[in-house]
Amino acid sequence: MSYAYLKGHGTENDFVVLPDADGSVHGDLSPERVRALCDRRAGIGADGVLRAVRRDDGRWFMDYRNGDGSVGEMCGNGIRVFARYLHEREGEGFPMEIETRSGVKAVQRSGEDFTADMGVPEVFGETSVSVGERAWPARHVSMGNPHAVAFVDDLAEAGRLLEPPGRDLSVFPDGVNVEFVVRCGEHHVAMRVHERGAGETRSCGTGACAVAVVAALADDAPRGTAYRVDVPGGTLGIVWTEDDRVLMTGPAEIVAVGVTDL
Amino acid sequence: MSYAYLKGHGTENDFVVLPDADGSVHGDLSPERVRALCDRRAGIGADGVLRAVRRDDGRWFMDYRNGDGSVGEMCGNGIRVFARYLHEREGEGFPMEIETRSGVKAVQRSGEDFTADMGVPEVFGETSVSVGERAWPARHVSMGNPHAVAFVDDLAEAGRLLEPPGRDLSVFPDGVNVEFVVRCGEHHVAMRVHERGAGETRSCGTGACAVAVVAALADDAPRGTAYRVDVPGGTLGIVWTEDDRVLMTGPAEIVAVGVTDL
Repeated sequence: MSYAYLKGHGTENDFVVLPDADGSVHGDLSPERVRALCDRRAGIGADGVLRAVRRDDGRWFMDYRNGDGSVGEMCGNGIRVFARYLHEREGEGFPMEIETRSGVKAVQRSGEDFTADMGVPEVFGETSVSVGERAWPARHVSMGNPHAVAFVDDLAEAGRLLEPPGRDLSVFPDGVNVEFVVRCGEHHVAMRVHERGAGETRSCGTGACAVAVVAALADDAPRGTAYRVDVPGGTLGIVWTEDDRVLMTGPAEIVAVGVTDL
Repeated sequence: MSYAYLKGHGTENDFVVLPDADGSVHGDLSPERVRALCDRRAGIGADGVLRAVRRDDGRWFMDYRNGDGSVGEMCGNGIRVFARYLHEREGEGFPMEIETRSGVKAVQRSGEDFTADMGVPEVFGETSVSVGERAWPARHVSMGNPHAVAFVDDLAEAGRLLEPPGRDLSVFPDGVNVEFVVRCGEHHVAMRVHERGAGETRSCGTGACAVAVVAALADDAPRGTAYRVDVPGGTLGIVWTEDDRVLMTGPAEIVAVGVTDL
């Protein structure tokens, strides 16, 4: 069976988009097909799949799957790519409401970029993370998923991050996303991230949000302050708003359109 | 500028194919564009690019570029993908003669697979390779490019191969492709490869040829004996013929066809 796909990325977190408006193309998209599509040598290659299905009420559902075939709730970099797809290929306008497994998300256009409402952060206490013999204090923040944010003097300090950093197993029994952060200037930080289950990646949307929240707390910055967060794959803009939501702004690119029978 | 591409692989050594019969689409394909296409996050993602240009005599030229944008001479896994493309999309029949930067290569069909003439091997003396504290004797073979073939007891023995293995700098001043090999059965071996400039890969066509040559010498096998060489990305069949040529047989897959403006 041949079917259409698009390839895109947001700050180099990349996705295969599968148009499937009426659900007739992919039905129950199988984990095997997701893995075949995401395989970086034998397939198209991507971090995940975004299947676009239109609901009866006209709203689009972002059926997000991780590269390993598992079902995903929400993806901050993915939803920008998804919104760009809906705008350019399905004629949807902004602001846009997109249904995800963690609720309906609003996406706006911000010049050439796209802004997604990433929800309400939960800020917890201090913890620590470690690589080899070295340990750093870290702040525990949830953006729906768990993060440990550690400020460091130099991003190279944590080494090659070939294994998950050490964590407090009583706090994070199921693993944690670990961000290492340096300050670059006022309201401007740079980060590396080790994502649980994925290893070090070029970008993590929820991680950038967690980092901006921890930086704003450390700076005692007023709500609404815009933070610039540099990730290895690009730059994200994060605002923690007065009504306690985190808005993430960043680029979304569609780089190819094609047909596959994977 | 939007242009057509295909994505394919041979034993998970993967390529972007660029149709450019009359050379008008890409002209002098720039290293920047090759890198953009091969970028696994921001681009299509591939080990290299195979641009298809038709010569005045009607023969097709495989303009092979490495993923870093540099010009490549010849690629054993790539030429099978290229031949499949020419057969299925340009109507070329088998046997096929394909021009490469290292001469005209013959490619035949072998059932579902494709067989490429990889040329004459040059067998040199003993050398050694090392990883950390551990060293192995190795045989130096050239298939146009240099190889050091080391038989080991277990493919895991060489560890994660995150760095180029140690080598004799007087023999291989410009680096060497290193194959670690185990015996699986009669005329059947399995290998891992660390390619100079690329790191550990899923497959290396010339490496599989070098391995089969060294195995045939060790076995004192008559010329024409078929060897099965398992690479991480699949299986290749290698025959060192009576007229001193190495024929490599393996699969070639085209997994997607599309348009990009990278």
